[in-house]
Amino acid sequence: MKTAVYRKEHFNAAHRLHRSDWSDEKNQSVFGKCNNPNYHGHNYDLYVKIVGEPDPETGYVMDMKVLSDLIKEHVTNKFDHKNLNLDVEYFKDMNPTAENIARVIYDILKKHIDNRYDLTITLYETERNFVEYPAG
Amino acid sequence: MKTAVYRKEHFNAAHRLHRSDWSDEKNQSVFGKCNNPNYHGHNYDLYVKIVGEPDPETGYVMDMKVLSDLIKEHVTNKFDHKNLNLDVEYFKDMNPTAENIARVIYDILKKHIDNRYDLTITLYETERNFVEYPAG
Amino acid sequence: MKTAVYRKEHFNAAHRLHRSDWSDEKNQSVFGKCNNPNYHGHNYDLYVKIVGEPDPETGYVMDMKVLSDLIKEHVTNKFDHKNLNLDVEYFKDMNPTAENIARVIYDILKKHIDNRYDLTITLYETERNFVEYPAG
Amino acid sequence: MKTAVYRKEHFNAAHRLHRSDWSDEKNQSVFGKCNNPNYHGHNYDLYVKIVGEPDPETGYVMDMKVLSDLIKEHVTNKFDHKNLNLDVEYFKDMNPTAENIARVIYDILKKHIDNRYDLTITLYETERNFVEYPAG
Amino acid sequence: MKTAVYRKEHFNAAHRLHRSDWSDEKNQSVFGKCNNPNYHGHNYDLYVKIVGEPDPETGYVMDMKVLSDLIKEHVTNKFDHKNLNLDVEYFKDMNPTAENIARVIYDILKKHIDNRYDLTITLYETERNFVEYPAG
Amino acid sequence: MKTAVYRKEHFNAAHRLHRSDWSDEKNQSVFGKCNNPNYHGHNYDLYVKIVGEPDPETGYVMDMKVLSDLIKEHVTNKFDHKNLNLDVEYFKDMNPTAENIARVIYDILKKHIDNRYDLTITLYETERNFVEYPAG
Repeated sequence: MKTAVYRKEHFNAAHRLHRSDWSDEKNQSVFGKCNNPNYHGHNYDLYVKIVGEPDPETGYVMDMKVLSDLIKEHVTNKFDHKNLNLDVEYFKDMNPTAENIARVIYDILKKHIDNRYDLTITLYETERNFVEYPAG
Repeated sequence: MKTAVYRKEHFNAAHRLHRSDWSDEKNQSVFGKCNNPNYHGHNYDLYVKIVGEPDPETGYVMDMKVLSDLIKEHVTNKFDHKNLNLDVEYFKDMNPTAENIARVIYDILKKHIDNRYDLTITLYETERNFVEYPAG
Repeated sequence: MKTAVYRKEHFNAAHRLHRSDWSDEKNQSVFGKCNNPNYHGHNYDLYVKIVGEPDPETGYVMDMKVLSDLIKEHVTNKFDHKNLNLDVEYFKDMNPTAENIARVIYDILKKHIDNRYDLTITLYETERNFVEYPAG
Repeated sequence: MKTAVYRKEHFNAAHRLHRSDWSDEKNQSVFGKCNNPNYHGHNYDLYVKIVGEPDPETGYVMDMKVLSDLIKEHVTNKFDHKNLNLDVEYFKDMNPTAENIARVIYDILKKHIDNRYDLTITLYETERNFVEYPAG
Repeated sequence: MKTAVYRKEHFNAAHRLHRSDWSDEKNQSVFGKCNNPNYHGHNYDLYVKIVGEPDPETGYVMDMKVLSDLIKEHVTNKFDHKNLNLDVEYFKDMNPTAENIARVIYDILKKHIDNRYDLTITLYETERNFVEYPAG
Repeated sequence: MKTAVYRKEHFNAAHRLHRSDWSDEKNQSVFGKCNNPNYHGHNYDLYVKIVGEPDPETGYVMDMKVLSDLIKEHVTNKFDHKNLNLDVEYFKDMNPTAENIARVIYDILKKHIDNRYDLTITLYETERNFVEYPAG
């Protein structure tokens, strides 16, 4: 049986849901008020879950300071106080839905976390709307 | 790997735990203060989890507005500000424990959600007592 | 300058807003879904604020254990898992609105708390509706 | 002694802090990452406090449904999923700091709330930064 | 499909992370500020998850009062307002990391809970650092 | 009318309530489980409230980054992961009750904050026990 550790971080960002290959009517119909051309924004709460075996010497699955620094360096420093559509390259051609943001964060962190760990991302767009990738 | 999306809704309701085929003593002994004949109540927090694949065009697993409307139409509009024992038919012959309420909500929503999605219900009776169906 | 100490307690109860001297139509029009004849309920969060001078020997304005026991004995044990309209005498002839419940709790606790302290009651009916008496 | 009632609402919006009469360097130095030219955003939690006397017949200081509808009509429907700088006229020539947003909301609601009530606005920009107007 | 029930309890304790077989430098380097020789402390939030089948007569997977009493008797009464390193025997030779505390709580409760139930422990050391055992 | 701004910070610390001029029996009787000789601990949540006039140019009462840095430099860096009784000079001869900690934090910050501002400290020892100085 393995142990999971979780670290919570957060970032504030603007975004807009829109497809330039769709008409304004279709964009408005599918994305509703999230299609506002001048952007809107959220306080995103991010939970990173790491599953592994505690080190018998330290009792840590992973040092939370190391994990927190990894998340800050590769994710929140690049997303915080940014416009996800305009300032973050991953969303140049992909809508910054919570689902897509979670998968992008997974792909970013996966490269920086040892393969013996399993990784799950949970992202709260609001207290009432949140996503998990991969789904548990 | 699939993605989960969650939507939080809530409702306030009265309930009582009681079996009419048991003596008052047995009811009191098993259900304690939840057996109060004049009912008591809760603010229920309801989380609905949907697991699927994000649509490549929209980036949505499911439109949260559609999911929220489904939950409101079929669940919270029927449970909110109600007496679960007297006003909600599912509990005519079944105790409205959190476990049973969660399963009833699962059964209601399952009929309205496409079969390609997996569905999980989490129901908070209080901040300290909550249930999940089916168990993850 | 004085110091305030706060203690949080909670109780779960059923209630209904209704005036028997009004028609059903007027009750429904004024109290809406809170008028449901079979009652509904809430998880009430109760904050009791006491203002005074810290005792120079102990550093306490008031022992939180003593305050917690007072609240439990005189308030939450009498309100928890009860129907406020039917089981709690104060609401025999007065609607158990959050405003009235807060004032009743104030009047109850005022008798048991030394006069050198100021007392304020804050009562959350839900996370989004709450009241304070007396208003700060 | 009066009673206070509180209603919580929320809205999600983008904003940017910037003065066009300042140099880019001064804007960056004073407003830091809040000066990002492409905007960023927040989930704003808004608490509206109304102080008055409970109506002896209803037990209400003010009907929370009426208050909630007023806030939605005049504030959150106009601010939610908007870019405060570009979409909300009040901020055409004034920085949408939390302090200024709270005062604008106060001025808007003051016109729609009977003068016998006192009004206070509390606005959370994040869980860790929030403001109150007028200060209690 | 089974049902999960969860109970939240909490305790406040002091701890220190340290290995007496390591140099002070290595302890400081690995455990950082958690190595403070005079201890520091936390408010721990503990969630106990039990998975089983609801009893068809009561509608309960397990009586939450029974579960709460078990947790209090065997865990929180022994950990609350204690120094985990000095006062709790399990940590005489093992660092009280959140990972190890969760596993100890699992081992303690496992003995007192019927084998037909699955058990999971989630322990929050802070709102931002928490662990789960076994990992879901 | 003035505006209040609030900043939330936090620290984790160990403490013990004890008077060396009292007998063990009296200490135990007055301070209960908070008298544990090996210390216990808390996650303290600290809210600092500043009341003033927003600067007409910036729209800020006070730059939250400046306030956050002040609190970190003078308070949380000195209290976090410390034993309040042993590591923090202010409590050498004074019990680290929440009341006294709040007043100490007030006295520390008062020296670093311009006199035109009013200052209030709110300190949560747990979610259920908290204090405010000076009392509002």
